[in-house]
Amino acid sequence: MVSQVVVIAGIGNGSGTGGAVARLFAKEGYTVALVSRGAESLDVLAKSIHASGGKAEAFPVPAYGPEELTAAFTAIHARYPAPEHAVTAAIFNAAHGVWKPFLEVTAEDVRESNKVNIEGSFAFARAAILAFQANELVPKTGKKGTLVFTGATASLRGNVITSAFASGRFAIRALSQSLAKEFGKDNIHVAHAIIDGVIATGNTRGDRNTPPSGPVENSTPDLKLSPESIAASYLYLVNQDRSAWTWELDLRPAHEKW
Amino acid sequence: MVSQVVVIAGIGNGSGTGGAVARLFAKEGYTVALVSRGAESLDVLAKSIHASGGKAEAFPVPAYGPEELTAAFTAIHARYPAPEHAVTAAIFNAAHGVWKPFLEVTAEDVRESNKVNIEGSFAFARAAILAFQANELVPKTGKKGTLVFTGATASLRGNVITSAFASGRFAIRALSQSLAKEFGKDNIHVAHAIIDGVIATGNTRGDRNTPPSGPVENSTPDLKLSPESIAASYLYLVNQDRSAWTWELDLRPAHEKW
Amino acid sequence: MVSQVVVIAGIGNGSGTGGAVARLFAKEGYTVALVSRGAESLDVLAKSIHASGGKAEAFPVPAYGPEELTAAFTAIHARYPAPEHAVTAAIFNAAHGVWKPFLEVTAEDVRESNKVNIEGSFAFARAAILAFQANELVPKTGKKGTLVFTGATASLRGNVITSAFASGRFAIRALSQSLAKEFGKDNIHVAHAIIDGVIATGNTRGDRNTPPSGPVENSTPDLKLSPESIAASYLYLVNQDRSAWTWELDLRPAHEKW
Amino acid sequence: MVSQVVVIAGIGNGSGTGGAVARLFAKEGYTVALVSRGAESLDVLAKSIHASGGKAEAFPVPAYGPEELTAAFTAIHARYPAPEHAVTAAIFNAAHGVWKPFLEVTAEDVRESNKVNIEGSFAFARAAILAFQANELVPKTGKKGTLVFTGATASLRGNVITSAFASGRFAIRALSQSLAKEFGKDNIHVAHAIIDGVIATGNTRGDRNTPPSGPVENSTPDLKLSPESIAASYLYLVNQDRSAWTWELDLRPAHEKW
Repeated sequence: MVSQVVVIAGIGNGSGTGGAVARLFAKEGYTVALVSRGAESLDVLAKSIHASGGKAEAFPVPAYGPEELTAAFTAIHARYPAPEHAVTAAIFNAAHGVWKPFLEVTAEDVRESNKVNIEGSFAFARAAILAFQANELVPKTGKKGTLVFTGATASLRGNVITSAFASGRFAIRALSQSLAKEFGKDNIHVAHAIIDGVIATGNTRGDRNTPPSGPVENSTPDLKLSPESIAASYLYLVNQDRSAWTWELDLRPAHEKW
Repeated sequence: MVSQVVVIAGIGNGSGTGGAVARLFAKEGYTVALVSRGAESLDVLAKSIHASGGKAEAFPVPAYGPEELTAAFTAIHARYPAPEHAVTAAIFNAAHGVWKPFLEVTAEDVRESNKVNIEGSFAFARAAILAFQANELVPKTGKKGTLVFTGATASLRGNVITSAFASGRFAIRALSQSLAKEFGKDNIHVAHAIIDGVIATGNTRGDRNTPPSGPVENSTPDLKLSPESIAASYLYLVNQDRSAWTWELDLRPAHEKW
Repeated sequence: MVSQVVVIAGIGNGSGTGGAVARLFAKEGYTVALVSRGAESLDVLAKSIHASGGKAEAFPVPAYGPEELTAAFTAIHARYPAPEHAVTAAIFNAAHGVWKPFLEVTAEDVRESNKVNIEGSFAFARAAILAFQANELVPKTGKKGTLVFTGATASLRGNVITSAFASGRFAIRALSQSLAKEFGKDNIHVAHAIIDGVIATGNTRGDRNTPPSGPVENSTPDLKLSPESIAASYLYLVNQDRSAWTWELDLRPAHEKW
Repeated sequence: MVSQVVVIAGIGNGSGTGGAVARLFAKEGYTVALVSRGAESLDVLAKSIHASGGKAEAFPVPAYGPEELTAAFTAIHARYPAPEHAVTAAIFNAAHGVWKPFLEVTAEDVRESNKVNIEGSFAFARAAILAFQANELVPKTGKKGTLVFTGATASLRGNVITSAFASGRFAIRALSQSLAKEFGKDNIHVAHAIIDGVIATGNTRGDRNTPPSGPVENSTPDLKLSPESIAASYLYLVNQDRSAWTWELDLRPAHEKW
C-alpha cells in the first residue's frame, strides 16, 4: 500500500496552525514532511510526533522563497520516493506579514512580501500540482491530491495598515481560485481557508521560532481559534471526495465581531 | 443524557440533500424530525431510517410558509420535550425555484418565492434560534446549536433567468450572515452552504414528491454532487467547535466549470 | 424631438436622494414623473421644479406595492404618451427599512419588507423594462433606457439588526444583476448604486413625509453624503454609453469608516 | 491660479485607455504628464495634444518598476513645481499581463508580474499620495487628489490561464482598497475601475508600442469598450466630491456575457 505524504510549509514554533496540522495528519497515518524556517523547532516537532507513534521529518528552509521551497520538494521526493510513497496533500501556511501605515511600507517590504506570499506560493503550488499529477486517484476520495492555502481576513478586505499584507493575501486567493478551476478537471482539489480571527498559539509575533511548546491550551475558545480546530478543518477538506469539494471556507471564533 | 434532535426542512422524495442529511444524522445518533411536503415520501423515509436502527419521525407540512413551519416546530417540541430532548441542529433545505425570463415572472411567482424563501426561512430560523437559546452548551462543541441553510450558485450571482430565484437565495444568504453575527455571541452557530452544481438525485424536477428510492448511485461523481457528500459537509459544520466555525463554504463537483 | 421622461419612485419629503435626482434630471431637460407616498410633499416638489423652469408631475401612491407601482406607470404612460414622449430612465429609490434584533422582527415585518423591497422592485422593473423595449435607441448613448436601483451597505453585508433589511437589499441586488445580464443584449442598462453611509437630508426617519424643505445644506460633507452628489452619480450612470456602462458602484463620504 | 497636473502611467501606443484619458484631461484643462514605455509613441501623443491646444509632456520610462516610476514623479515635480502646479490626479494604467496555463508560468514570469503590478503600483501610489498630501483642497471637490487604478475581470476572479495575471490584479485591488480606507480621512480619494471586457484599440497585443494612430473608431460599441468612454468614467471619478465618492465601479459593453 502506498504511504501518503503531506507537505506542510510554514510551521513557526509548532504551536500554531502548521504544527497542529502536522500532529493531526500524523495521527491519521500520513507521513508528514515539515517545511519551515527554524530547524531547531522543526526538529523538536518531528521528534514529538515520532514519540506519539507518527511519522514526520524536518525539511528546514532558510526562507520561503521559490528556490528554497522547490528544493525542499526535491528533497522530499528523494526521501519518500514513488511508488512506495505519494504526496497527496500539501498545505501552504507560510506568510510574510507587513502591517504598517502605507507611507512606512518600503520598497524592500513589498519585494519581501511578494517573495514569500506570491513567488513562494507559486513555487510551492507548482511542486504540489506536479506531485499530484503523478498520483493514482486516492480510492476514498477519487482525487489525486489536495492543496490547501491558509488565508486571512486580509484575503477579502484591504484595510488601514494592510496594504502590503492584503496585497499578498489577495494574490494567494487569486492563485488558489485559478488553480481550483484549472486542475479540478484533473481531479486535483485546491482549497482556500480564510482564518478570520486571532489564533491561540504559544507564541507572540516576536518569538515565532522559539522551540515549540506543543499544543497550547485555548482558554478563550469563543475569542480565539484553536489550531487543532483549524487543523480539523484542513483534514476535512483533504477528506472531501471529488463529487462535492470546497474551494473556500471561512473560520472564526464564536464571539468574533465581523 | 439529553437526546439531540435535528430538524430538517425540505426533503422532497428523500433521494436528495434533505434525505441524505436525515440518514447521516440518524446514523450519528440524532433523533431526526423530518419537515417536508409529501407526507407519503416522508413516511417511507422515516420507516427506512427506523429499519436501519435510527430514530426519525415525519412532520409533514402542506407548504413551506411561515405558519406551517412554526406549527411544525411546535409539534416537534411537543413530541420531543425538554429536558430529555434538545434541538441542537436545524437544516433549512427548502426552496421555491422560479427559473424564467424576467418578463414571464408573474407577481404571483414573486409572492410565492418570497413566501417560501424568505418568510419561510425567517420563521424556521426564529423557531430554531429560540430552541437553541433554551439549550445547555453541547460539551463537545461548546455551542448551543447549529443552523445550516442550503444555498446555490444563485446565492452569489444573478443571471439571465434567475431574477426571482436569485432574489430569494440572496435574501437567505443575508439572513444567514445577519444571524451568524447576531447570535455568535450566544454560541449559536449559523452557516450557509453554497451548492454550486447539479445534485445527483433519483428524481427530476417534475417528480420531486414521488416516493423516495433511497440513496441513489452517482455514476458521474466528478460532474454531479452526491447528496451523501453534501450531508457529510453539513455534519462537519454541526461538529465544528465554537473556536473555529464556518459561516460559508461552497461545494461543487471536480469538473464543474465555474 | 421626443421628450425624455424619467420615473422616480421613492422621494420622501423631497430633501433626500429622490428629490435631488428629480431636480437634477429636470434641469437636464427630462420630464420628471414623481412616484411616492405623501401627495402633499410630492406636490410641493413638483411645483418647485416648475418654478425653476423644469417639468415635473406628481403620481402619488398609497404604498410601494406592486399594484400601486404598476398603476403609477400606467398613469405616466397615459399622461406622457408615445411617440411624443419616451421613458428612458427609471430610478427605484423606495425602501422599507426594518432595523430590529432578529427576535423582534415579526412575520408582518418580513411580509411588508418583501412587499416593498421585492414585489415592489420587481413590478417597477417590469414596467420600466417594458417601457424601454418600446423605445428607439437614444442617439447619444446607444441605449433604450437606464434603470437605477438604490442600494445600501446592507446590500453587501448582513449585520446584527439587519436581517430583514439586508434580505430585502440583497434581493434587489440580485434582481438588478439578473436584469443587467438579461437585458444588456437589448441595449437596456441596469445599474445598482450602493450608498454606504448616512445621507444628509432635512428630515430624520420619523418625519419623512413632511413637506420638503428643498435641498439641504450638508455641513459635514466628509461625514454625510449630499443628495445632490448622489444624484450627479445617477445622472452619470444614465449618460454612460453602451460601450462602457456600469452595473455597480459604491458611494460614501470621505471620512466614512468601512 | 494653480495649474492642475494629472500623471498617467501606462499608455502603450496611445490608442487605448491611457491615451484617451490623456486627451480628455488635457481638454478639461489639466497639464498631462505622460509616463510610459515607448518614448516615440509618447512623443507623438504629446504633440497631438499640443496641436489640439492642450498641455502634455512625455516622461518616458524604460520599465514600470518602482525605481523608474519614482524617478518619473521626481522629474514631473521638477518640471511642474509648486506652488504654480499641483498634481491632483494620478492614473495607474500599467499592467504586466501573463496569460498561460499554470505549469507554463515561470518563476521569472511571476517576478516580472510582481514587479510591474505590485512593486510598480505601490511606488506609483506612494508618489501620488505624497504629492496629494502637499496640496490644498481642490475647491470644487473638497479633495486633495484622486488616484485611479485600472482593474480587469481578473481583479475579481481567478481563472484557468490567469493565475499570474489575477494575482497581480487582486493585489492592486487590495492596495486600492487599503489606500481608500487609510487616506479617505485626509480627503484623498482612491478608486478602482474594473474593465470587464475587450477594449477597442488600434493595436493588438503584439504592437502596443507602435506610434499612436490617435483615437480609434469603435465599430462594435456593444461588444467592445471605447477608450473615450472609459476616460469619461475616470474624469467622473476625479470630479466626484468628497461627500459621495466611489471606490469601485465596473465597466463593460452592453452585450458582454458575464
